Amino acid sequence: MTDIAITKKDLIGLHPRDIRALIRARRWTGPSEGQARGYAQANLVVLRRDAAFDFLLFCLRNRKPCPIVEVTDPGSPIVTQVADSADLRTDLARYCVYENGELAAEPEDITEYWRDDLVGFLIGCSYSFEEAMVQANIPLRHLDEDKIVSLYTTNVPCLPAGRFSGPMVVSMRPVKREQMVRAVQVTSRFPDTHGAPVHIGDPAAIGVDLDDVVFGSDRVEVKADEVPLFWGCGCTPQAVAIASKVDFMITHKAGHLFMTDVLSEEIAAL
Amino acid sequence: MTDIAITKKDLIGLHPRDIRALIRARRWTGPSEGQARGYAQANLVVLRRDAAFDFLLFCLRNRKPCPIVEVTDPGSPIVTQVADSADLRTDLARYCVYENGELAAEPEDITEYWRDDLVGFLIGCSYSFEEAMVQANIPLRHLDEDKIVSLYTTNVPCLPAGRFSGPMVVSMRPVKREQMVRAVQVTSRFPDTHGAPVHIGDPAAIGVDLDDVVFGSDRVEVKADEVPLFWGCGCTPQAVAIASKVDFMITHKAGHLFMTDVLSEEIAAL
Repeated sequence: MTDIAITKKDLIGLHPRDIRALIRARRWTGPSEGQARGYAQANLVVLRRDAAFDFLLFCLRNRKPCPIVEVTDPGSPIVTQVADSADLRTDLARYCVYENGELAAEPEDITEYWRDDLVGFLIGCSYSFEEAMVQANIPLRHLDEDKIVSLYTTNVPCLPAGRFSGPMVVSMRPVKREQMVRAVQVTSRFPDTHGAPVHIGDPAAIGVDLDDVVFGSDRVEVKADEVPLFWGCGCTPQAVAIASKVDFMITHKAGHLFMTDVLSEEIAAL
Repeated sequence: MTDIAITKKDLIGLHPRDIRALIRARRWTGPSEGQARGYAQANLVVLRRDAAFDFLLFCLRNRKPCPIVEVTDPGSPIVTQVADSADLRTDLARYCVYENGELAAEPEDITEYWRDDLVGFLIGCSYSFEEAMVQANIPLRHLDEDKIVSLYTTNVPCLPAGRFSGPMVVSMRPVKREQMVRAVQVTSRFPDTHGAPVHIGDPAAIGVDLDDVVFGSDRVEVKADEVPLFWGCGCTPQAVAIASKVDFMITHKAGHLFMTDVLSEEIAAL
C-alpha cells in the first residue's frame, strides 16, 4: 500500500492485525464499525491499579453490560490473549482521557499518558452479535440508515462495587414481532458481547423514553409490527467510572473500538 | 427438627438456606454432594486483599477451570448475589487454612480467622452439570460407585497472572462413545460451572496417566466402549494458590462446598 490517503473502502477484507498496523502508523484513524467483519471488537477502559480491583468487581457483578474480554497485567499496555501482541497505547484510532470525571484530552495515541500503574480492560462490544443477527436475516435499522445504535440510560441499578455504582446503559434495536424469538436465540450465543436482551417490549418499565437517546447516539423508528429489544451496553462501565469521578481514566473514543484477532464465532457460547 | 443427630437422609428435600442454617448451628458438618439437588454449589477461596487482584485476573484468564460465581467486598464475609445473606465464616461445613502454602488448620468455622482485608471468592463446581448429565441419562460411574470424581494434574499451563501460575487440574468422566456428543452439549450449557470438556479421548496428550489421581480422589474404570472426557476443575485455583505459597488462604475442605440459593438451570447459558 502506498502512502496516499486511505479510505474506509481500502480496509475491506483486511485482517484486524493489518488494520491495527495502519492505525499504529496513523494512516487510518476512522471509526471501526463494519471493519474486519466477523472479528470481535472491544471497548477500552484504562484505570490506575488502585481503582482496578473495584472496577473488575463491578464488571463481574454486572456481566450483561460489562463482559470482560481481557485485562492486561498492571503496567503493561500489551494485549496477549485476544490479539497478537497489540499495544493499547497506539492500536486504537482515537482515545478520551478523563481526569476526575472530566474529559481532559482526545489524543490519537496515549503513549505519553501511559504509566507503570495502569491496567487496560477490554470489554465486549455488541458489533459482534449484530453481525450474527444480520446473518440470521434480522434487519438492523440503525445499520440500514447508517446511524449509531440508540443508547439509553435506564433506571435499573447496577450492582455496586467499591466506588463504582450507577444505572445500566442499554442499546435498543427494533425487531419484528415474528423475529423476536430468533433475536433472543442468536444474541444468547454471545455472552462475551452482552448476550441476550436485558428487557423486551416496555421502555417505561426500565425508565426509558425512546426519544431521550444518550452519548450522541441516534433515534430510530419503532414500527407498529416491531418490538423494542434492549441489550446491556458497554458504555455502562465508562459512564459509571465517569460518574464516580475516578481520578484518571482513558477510554477509546466512541465508535473507535479495539479490533481483536478473535472471530466472534470462536467465542460464541454454543 | 429436634436436637437429635442429623443424618444425610434428614437433609433430603431441604432448601440450601435451611441446610446452611443447620451447618451454622454445627448440627450438620458432612459433605455437600447430593444435597439441595438442582442448586449450584461453589468452591471457596479466601485471600487477603493484596493478593485478590492477581487471583481475580488468574481466574478471568482461565475461565474453564476457574469460573467466578461471586466475589465479596473486601472485608465482608457476606454473600449477597447467589445466596440470601449467607456468611462465609460459618455457612460451610469445614474449612482449610493455609499459611505460606502449608495447611495450618482445619476449622469448622472461620470466624476467628476473619480479618478486615479478606476477600471471598466463590468458584463454580461441576456438581451442577453432573446433575444435568444424569437428567440426560448419561451415567456417571463415580456416582454409581459412591466415589470422588477422578482428578488429574495436566501438563497444560494456565495463563499466569502476577504471582499465580501453574498447570490446569481436570476432572475425568468416562462416557459411552455414542453419548459423547450429548455430554458435550449438556455440559456446554453450564459455562459458570466449568462448561464443555477441555479435552476428549487422549489422556497422554494432556500429560495425564489415568492411574495417577490427585487430591485424594478415586480412580474409575474406562471401559472399551467408553471415551475419557476431561473438564477444567475448580481445584485448579486452590492448587495454584498453594503452589505460589500465598501467605494466607482459607478454602472449603474438599467435598464440603458452599451451597447457593441459585438453581443450576437459572444460570445455564441457554
